[in-house]
Amino acid sequence: MRMRKKAWAEPFLKENADFVIEKPEIWAGHWREKLACQRLRIEIGSGKGDYFTKMAAMNPDEGWIGIEKEHNVAAVAAKKALAQPHEHMALIAQDADQLSSWFAKGELDVIHLNFSDPWPKSGYAKRRLSHARFLKQYEALLNPQGQVIMKTDNPKLFEFSLTEFSRENWQLREVSVDFRRQPHPEDAITEYEQKFMDLGQPIYRAVWQKKAI
Amino acid sequence: MRMRKKAWAEPFLKENADFVIEKPEIWAGHWREKLACQRLRIEIGSGKGDYFTKMAAMNPDEGWIGIEKEHNVAAVAAKKALAQPHEHMALIAQDADQLSSWFAKGELDVIHLNFSDPWPKSGYAKRRLSHARFLKQYEALLNPQGQVIMKTDNPKLFEFSLTEFSRENWQLREVSVDFRRQPHPEDAITEYEQKFMDLGQPIYRAVWQKKAI
Repeated sequence: MRMRKKAWAEPFLKENADFVIEKPEIWAGHWREKLACQRLRIEIGSGKGDYFTKMAAMNPDEGWIGIEKEHNVAAVAAKKALAQPHEHMALIAQDADQLSSWFAKGELDVIHLNFSDPWPKSGYAKRRLSHARFLKQYEALLNPQGQVIMKTDNPKLFEFSLTEFSRENWQLREVSVDFRRQPHPEDAITEYEQKFMDLGQPIYRAVWQKKAI
Repeated sequence: MRMRKKAWAEPFLKENADFVIEKPEIWAGHWREKLACQRLRIEIGSGKGDYFTKMAAMNPDEGWIGIEKEHNVAAVAAKKALAQPHEHMALIAQDADQLSSWFAKGELDVIHLNFSDPWPKSGYAKRRLSHARFLKQYEALLNPQGQVIMKTDNPKLFEFSLTEFSRENWQLREVSVDFRRQPHPEDAITEYEQKFMDLGQPIYRAVWQKKAI
């Protein structure tokens, strides 16, 4: 998601270094203590933070870490989170390519991928957050019952993801080709998602869990 | 698909016993010779035969066996098939529950499930053609590279099938949440399918292959 450059973004992120973690790798293996939580979820590509702030408010006992590399967007997310109770929350304003160094093996319970960049050209398939090279990292970071949960409006990204997870031996636990066909009060609707719903477009969703080998 | 009872159906099926196979079990392991083909495909629930007659005409080297338990419908399919070259075709007008006795292990290349009855009530899940009890039979009858190919207009059946195949350790090779978004001249469009397309409804399609254990 591109936004106009915000002059206040960089200073704001730096001023709130207790929330916007500059060296996430030093917390690897200790996020539960830091965020005082039992369950730990991350959202890769948290954008303006609508989802993770709403979900954190709805699940006050769980830890939520947003990851967003675009600083102009991450600053909006930080502002939003800091305006609400956020003792179980944190933000990492860096590229998810370094994900594996930020968490210990088996430390995560859920990885959320919401409306990720589809990188439609096949030459950029490796950049998709459901590409095998990411799935191997997710596998290492999730605990054995851990899950990846994806929502998207993009049918091609969804189709790519379904076959990619299958090829990498993940089990598809839940799937919906029209998630908002039924009410799901347990799952926050972001502004971005609402736009597609208003247009009558289906929201695709899937939940995967790594198979024990 | 329910149709009005046709007085001519039963006699017609009997008169064409060389095409409408009454004892398919005697051909188990010998279908390729009988139908003079290298590749062998079956369609379970072939209805009025639109798909398998069109596909057989488009793939004249392959063997095609339709399976349809409703005699009123199977008779329409038989009539349609007999009106075109059908030396590589056959019809079985019986319940697919007996499937395993009709073919030898590894004899099939492709099993088609087109617009199958969704049996929406959970109490009838066992009757769905993508229920685990059928998948275990398909696994035995397909050769190691064999595939199950499903098309449906029913999102719930599609979602059920995706999770069921995954649970049974099949690999999802191809998937589409809107198969007719792009032209697919290699795949025949039946009258039934066309109705959904005319209504702007998506056609869901998936291709699975059993994973080597």
